[in-house]
Amino acid sequence: MTVTATIWRATVLTLFPEMFPGPLGASLAGKALATGLWELEAQDIRDSATDRHRSVDDTPAGGGPGMVLRADVLAAAIDGAEIAPGRPRLLMSPRGRPLTQSRVVELAGGSGPLIVCGRFEGIDQRVIEARGLEEVSLGDYVLSGGEIAAMALIDACVRLLPGVMGKPDSGLDESFSDGLLEYPQYTRPQAFEGRPIPEILLSGDHAKIAAWRQAEAEALTRARRPDLWAARKASQKRPKNTTDG
Amino acid sequence: MTVTATIWRATVLTLFPEMFPGPLGASLAGKALATGLWELEAQDIRDSATDRHRSVDDTPAGGGPGMVLRADVLAAAIDGAEIAPGRPRLLMSPRGRPLTQSRVVELAGGSGPLIVCGRFEGIDQRVIEARGLEEVSLGDYVLSGGEIAAMALIDACVRLLPGVMGKPDSGLDESFSDGLLEYPQYTRPQAFEGRPIPEILLSGDHAKIAAWRQAEAEALTRARRPDLWAARKASQKRPKNTTDG
Repeated sequence: MTVTATIWRATVLTLFPEMFPGPLGASLAGKALATGLWELEAQDIRDSATDRHRSVDDTPAGGGPGMVLRADVLAAAIDGAEIAPGRPRLLMSPRGRPLTQSRVVELAGGSGPLIVCGRFEGIDQRVIEARGLEEVSLGDYVLSGGEIAAMALIDACVRLLPGVMGKPDSGLDESFSDGLLEYPQYTRPQAFEGRPIPEILLSGDHAKIAAWRQAEAEALTRARRPDLWAARKASQKRPKNTTDG
Repeated sequence: MTVTATIWRATVLTLFPEMFPGPLGASLAGKALATGLWELEAQDIRDSATDRHRSVDDTPAGGGPGMVLRADVLAAAIDGAEIAPGRPRLLMSPRGRPLTQSRVVELAGGSGPLIVCGRFEGIDQRVIEARGLEEVSLGDYVLSGGEIAAMALIDACVRLLPGVMGKPDSGLDESFSDGLLEYPQYTRPQAFEGRPIPEILLSGDHAKIAAWRQAEAEALTRARRPDLWAARKASQKRPKNTTDG
């Protein structure tokens, strides 16, 4: 049996396929896309419409503003996409579970998700249930559609794929990797408008620098994100993972 | 004295101005941009570099992976942008305060923000302090840069601007407007794979439909977002706003 390396692939179902790759075609994600480190497929939901007007939406049952994406049309689009059984099927929606870095790490470690981009007032609930869509939210705000949300999710995953970031340790020392916000950063010039770089960072004493950064990250997290700080304290009551470092 | 109507404007400072308008040039935001309901300006931070290599970043003081955006270069870019005193100056960063719909409503009600997009490991802390940048986070995950985050923030604001959404009430009956996730939506066809639209939505009894939707929104919020549910319960202990409806 030969094992074929699968390339991480994002399959996006959208009414605006022309939005893709968009910002994902530039910078880090764009270079990785061009060199084949990941794949992106944007499919038009409208191609699954069956009537001659190619209509995809209709008024909400029970009344109310806006339009609702039809269950039958979206189900046909999902069924038409080539989705291996194990691939997650996500629906970007403010009703979903908030995206976290640990979910991003999971998604980056798999073979890549199918992502449905909502539009209008919403999506017929029956297709969410019938196709087992996992609703994922970027945060507690409302976008005009799921496309930019899908881009954010894809970008967060792609930067973690093997070979994408310049240095393999770039992803370790950053926000959320240890339940903390990142410590402040400084670079040359050494004086900026009378503000010096903190002396300790210029000391060359790596242990002291690490301790200072840790203390800064903790102070920032405590001040700005008491929710993260409390979650971290709770998790530290459990035994810590050992590392080989 | 004549009062000039100011158009809402987003000024983006980025190392990848070619990413803009990107997805903001299509669909709802794109139509509104084309008809002059808002303005978008993407300026290249690199234009403010002073050396002949046009360098904008340098290694982190104290060591560590990646590169840090220089304080002097970014300060020059900020100072070069024409920013009226009242305009918010945002920095998209996972270290920031999480974006909420109420902050989006505030930003949409102003004259539009300056938005700095981070890249690399981060931005020299001194320019954040010296220029009073407000760090804003999309959520608890890490993107390769602030550009897609800026697009999400802008999209969330633009849809709330006068004249952008088709119906003026489209923004009211949605997630977070009342501290709740949105109730499930249904539309034709009436039967989908043996799943009917809930009968009550076809009853024509508007009071019963409203009560059902409210109960569904509450049940969903309680199940999926106990944090939102608790916040809502706490706020309901205070006197409610009256409405004229």
